[in-house]
Amino acid sequence: MDKGFDVLKANFLRHTSLTDDELNSINHYYEEKQVEKGEYILRQGDICRFEGFVIEGCFEISTSDARGNERILYFAVKDWWVMEIDSFIGQTSSELDIKAIEPSQLLVITKTDKERLYQEVPKAERLFRIMSQRAVVAWQRRLIRNHTMTAEERYFHFLNTYPEISQRITNKQIASYLGITQEFVSKIRRKNLSRRS
Amino acid sequence: MDKGFDVLKANFLRHTSLTDDELNSINHYYEEKQVEKGEYILRQGDICRFEGFVIEGCFEISTSDARGNERILYFAVKDWWVMEIDSFIGQTSSELDIKAIEPSQLLVITKTDKERLYQEVPKAERLFRIMSQRAVVAWQRRLIRNHTMTAEERYFHFLNTYPEISQRITNKQIASYLGITQEFVSKIRRKNLSRRS
Repeated sequence: MDKGFDVLKANFLRHTSLTDDELNSINHYYEEKQVEKGEYILRQGDICRFEGFVIEGCFEISTSDARGNERILYFAVKDWWVMEIDSFIGQTSSELDIKAIEPSQLLVITKTDKERLYQEVPKAERLFRIMSQRAVVAWQRRLIRNHTMTAEERYFHFLNTYPEISQRITNKQIASYLGITQEFVSKIRRKNLSRRS
Repeated sequence: MDKGFDVLKANFLRHTSLTDDELNSINHYYEEKQVEKGEYILRQGDICRFEGFVIEGCFEISTSDARGNERILYFAVKDWWVMEIDSFIGQTSSELDIKAIEPSQLLVITKTDKERLYQEVPKAERLFRIMSQRAVVAWQRRLIRNHTMTAEERYFHFLNTYPEISQRITNKQIASYLGITQEFVSKIRRKNLSRRS
């Protein structure tokens, strides 16, 4: 098995037990992909033909509204899944753009291969049932934060919860992710710097 | 099998095939529960000990922020799942309140019985893998709407997408769900009434 799959394997084994045979079968279906900084692996309107898992680097997942404004929905770094699940499941056009904001590496699997994997390794059903439930938990937590925290509280929550992401992105990207203006991010930072001095 | 389970069975069979034996085994683990209007089936701070499926009625799922303001996150009607998934999976304290806003009926399963069900009916892993992925799709769509639609657009999207819910709730409840004031809901309604006349 190669280095990339080791990251995915370690992730899987945190959630369920898998035999070496099962791991070899799973490995067989994933393909490594190198992506350059600035490269899009998915464009809004195209069909998402992969389910991706980040081995290295950072991706920005965004959408554009009817007025053409780009809004960042989330970032994906090592050990995160990256895909447009709605488009992948239905093989319909994607609502999202996915762009590497650093030189990145990921493992990808096609929908056909994913179905083959479920047939060949029934344990994968359990594995991805657990993965999907964890994703639901993450989305629920995010919705609760959006409904209960101020922009300032969400800014500091993001910095504290995802230090590995917040150090790699610009104020403009954080602002877009939080749904606030860049000026507001600067204001929060200034306010908190002056409190500390 | 009783009438309540028929609703859940029909839902399951839309997503995967199940034998009569598998359905009987699943049915065995679910319990019917009647809930009065205004009754809470879960309180913020308590542990969510059930995964619920709505057979009849309507539930309001809400949370309260640090300032004590109640915010409605979503509503659940017939054929929807209702639970605090974060609390259910980790058996930790719930971030959410769940209240019946009509006389309601649901099917519930405990965490221990859910694990037994996965052991007894391995197909349930596939079923709930598919269910959980559908939930992720729904959350992703919601996040995209929150990031790209105006409050007015989200108001009409809600009315058009969930007519079975919007007819049963008050302006105050819609406002809380959309994260806008009740006055703003009234303003949107007046504006659109005057456009039509």
